[in-house]
Amino acid sequence: MTRQIHLGSVAIGGDAPIVIQSMCNTKTTDAEGTLAQIRQLADLGCQVIRVALPAFSAMSSLERICAESPLPVVADIHFDARLALEALSAGAHGIRVNPGNLRDTTAIRQLAQEAARLSRCVRIGVNMGSLSPSAQKRYGMSAEAMVQSALEYLKIFEDAGCQNLKVSLKSSDLRISIEAARRFHAISDWPLHLGITEAGTPMAGTIKSAIGLGVLLLEGIGDTIRVSLTAPPKAEITAAHRILEALGLLPGRPQLVSCPTCGRTRIDLIPIAEAVEAEIDRLMSAGKTIALRKIAVMGCEVNGPGEAADADLGIAGGNGTGTVFKFGKPVQHCPENELLPVLLAEIHAAAKLPIRASKSSGKPW
Amino acid sequence: MTRQIHLGSVAIGGDAPIVIQSMCNTKTTDAEGTLAQIRQLADLGCQVIRVALPAFSAMSSLERICAESPLPVVADIHFDARLALEALSAGAHGIRVNPGNLRDTTAIRQLAQEAARLSRCVRIGVNMGSLSPSAQKRYGMSAEAMVQSALEYLKIFEDAGCQNLKVSLKSSDLRISIEAARRFHAISDWPLHLGITEAGTPMAGTIKSAIGLGVLLLEGIGDTIRVSLTAPPKAEITAAHRILEALGLLPGRPQLVSCPTCGRTRIDLIPIAEAVEAEIDRLMSAGKTIALRKIAVMGCEVNGPGEAADADLGIAGGNGTGTVFKFGKPVQHCPENELLPVLLAEIHAAAKLPIRASKSSGKPW
Repeated sequence: MTRQIHLGSVAIGGDAPIVIQSMCNTKTTDAEGTLAQIRQLADLGCQVIRVALPAFSAMSSLERICAESPLPVVADIHFDARLALEALSAGAHGIRVNPGNLRDTTAIRQLAQEAARLSRCVRIGVNMGSLSPSAQKRYGMSAEAMVQSALEYLKIFEDAGCQNLKVSLKSSDLRISIEAARRFHAISDWPLHLGITEAGTPMAGTIKSAIGLGVLLLEGIGDTIRVSLTAPPKAEITAAHRILEALGLLPGRPQLVSCPTCGRTRIDLIPIAEAVEAEIDRLMSAGKTIALRKIAVMGCEVNGPGEAADADLGIAGGNGTGTVFKFGKPVQHCPENELLPVLLAEIHAAAKLPIRASKSSGKPW
Repeated sequence: MTRQIHLGSVAIGGDAPIVIQSMCNTKTTDAEGTLAQIRQLADLGCQVIRVALPAFSAMSSLERICAESPLPVVADIHFDARLALEALSAGAHGIRVNPGNLRDTTAIRQLAQEAARLSRCVRIGVNMGSLSPSAQKRYGMSAEAMVQSALEYLKIFEDAGCQNLKVSLKSSDLRISIEAARRFHAISDWPLHLGITEAGTPMAGTIKSAIGLGVLLLEGIGDTIRVSLTAPPKAEITAAHRILEALGLLPGRPQLVSCPTCGRTRIDLIPIAEAVEAEIDRLMSAGKTIALRKIAVMGCEVNGPGEAADADLGIAGGNGTGTVFKFGKPVQHCPENELLPVLLAEIHAAAKLPIRASKSSGKPW
C-alpha cells in the first residue's frame, strides 16, 4: 500500500478511493471561464483540477482561481521553476512539475524547500520526452529511465522535507507506461498518478486509457487517474467513471450487465439498458448512492435467468414479456412495456444520499 | 503459441493475426436481412460472423445464409444438440455450443463425430452460468471450474478426432474472465476466443471489453475476439478495431497520438486530430494499408516536438502556426490552416493497397 498524502482537502494514496483528475482547456488568464469549467467538472465528479501556467501573466488569474475553485487546483508548469514558486505564492494547492524540463537544479531545490515550508503537494511528472540527463544516459529511452528520473528528482524533494509528493510516469506507448508504473510501484511507496499521455480522440483515447489504467488498477497500482482525451474535459470525467465502474472501484454504483441482443431476443432490450444506465448516471450525479451490487438487463433464456439470478436486480426477457428478479429470485412476470418502470422503481427505492459525502465535491465518488 | 485451426478460410491461432468476430442481431429466419447485416459487417472488417439458431424453423434460412455469406458463419446453439447436427448439414462453417446446457452426453459425442468427419470448427463456449456439473461440484462457481468444464468437453471432441476446436470462457465478471483465460492458456494450446459477456451499453461495454481483452492480449493470450455490446453489431467492429489499434495489433494502421489540449494550445487542435483519424478510417475501409508507424498531432511546445520527432509524421502547434515533422525531422513551418492539408497529403502518399489481402474479407485486417 502507498503512503497517504494530501492535496488540499483530498486524500490520495493509502486506503483512499482512487481520485479522478482532469485539466482545464481554457486559458488560465480567463479566470471566469476557467472557474466555470472547474465548477462544471466538479459537478460531474472531478476531484482535482489542473490548469496550465505557461507565463507570469496568468498569475493574478491563478490567484483568483485558487481562491474560488471548489476543487484543489494544481498548476502545471514547464521550463521555468520560478513560475512554480510564484504559483505557490498565488495559493496553488499543488504544482505539477517536470524536473526534466526545469533543468536548473538550484531552482528545483529552492522550489522543494518552499513546497515543504507551505506543505503543498508536488507531482513529479516524468515524461519519456524529458528524462533526467543522467538516467537517459544510463538507461536509454526506457521504462527504467523514467523510474530512475523520478527517483532522482524525488530525492531532491524528500531531502527538502516534502511530505505530499506523487509521481507520474507517462509515455504515449501503452506497454512502456505500464512497465514504468509496475517498476516504480515495486520499489517506492509514493502515490502514483496514472495516465496514458496523448491517448487520442474520444473513443480511441478512452480505449487506450481503459487498457493502460485497467491493467494497473487491477494489480492494485495507481492512486489517482486522469483519462487524457483530445476532447472537452468533461468527456474525461465520464470516461474515468466508466473505467472505475468496470473495475468495481466506484463506491455506491451498481455494476450494470446487459446482453448484446441477438436473433433470440424478443423484446426491445437496447432502450431498456440505456434508460437504466441513464437513471443510474442521474442519481449518482444528484449525489446519491445505490444500494445494489449488480443490475442485469438480459434478453433471453440462455444466459438471462443465470445472470439475473446472480444480480441484486434483473430482468430476463421472453417473447414480448419478461421476468423480474430480486436478489436471485423471480418475483414478477410482466409484459414488455412494464419492465422498465418496474426496474426504475426498484432502483429509486435503493437510492440514498450517502451518510458521509466526500469533502471535496459533496459527491459520493 | 497456440496451435492453428481453420474456420472456413480463416486461420485462427498460431501466427495468425487476431481475428475479429461479431454476431447478427437479426432473426436468422430472415435470410435477406441477416445477409445484408453480414455484408455490412464484412465491409467494416468483421472476419467471422455468428448467428443464433434457436429453432429448427430457421434451418432453411441458415442454409442460404451459409451459401451466400462473404464470411464464415458460426451457428450459435443452446439446449439441443440436434440443432447443431442439422446446422452442420446446412453448411455452417462452425458451430458454437455450450455443452453445459446441451446436457445429453451421447448427443454431444455424436455431434463431435460429425464435426470431425466434416472438418468443421467447433467452439466450446463455457459460461459461468452453465458449467459442467462435475466441475461445478468440485470447484464451485470459479474460474477453475470454467477451465475444467472446457477441458472435460474438449476431451469428447478431441477423442472424436476434431482438429478445429477453440474455447471461450466467459463471465460478466472481469476478474474471473481474465483469471480463467490465464489458467486455460497456461495448460492448453487450443486457441482462445476472448469476450467479456454482457459487457453493457456502448461506452461502458467498450471500456469493460477494452480492459478485459487488453489485459490478456498484452500477455499474448487470445486468438480471436468479440466485443459484446448492447448496441447494433457494427459498433462491436469499430470497438474491436480500436482495441487492437491501441495494442499495436492492427497491421497496416498507424498509431495516432494526439494531445488533450490545455491552456497552452494556440491552434484549434481537436478538429485536426478528428479529421486525421477519420481519414485513416476511410483509407483502411477502402482496403489500404498506411506505411506510417505513428502519427502525432500535438498542440504545443511541451511534449509536441518530442512526440512529433518520435513519429513518422507529426505536427507541433505554435501560436496560430505549426511545425510539420517527418521521420523525426522538422520539414516545414506553416500557418494553422495548412497543417491539416499537409498531414492528409502525407497520409495519402503513404497509403497503399496491400500486396496480399486477407482471404476472408479482402481487407488488410
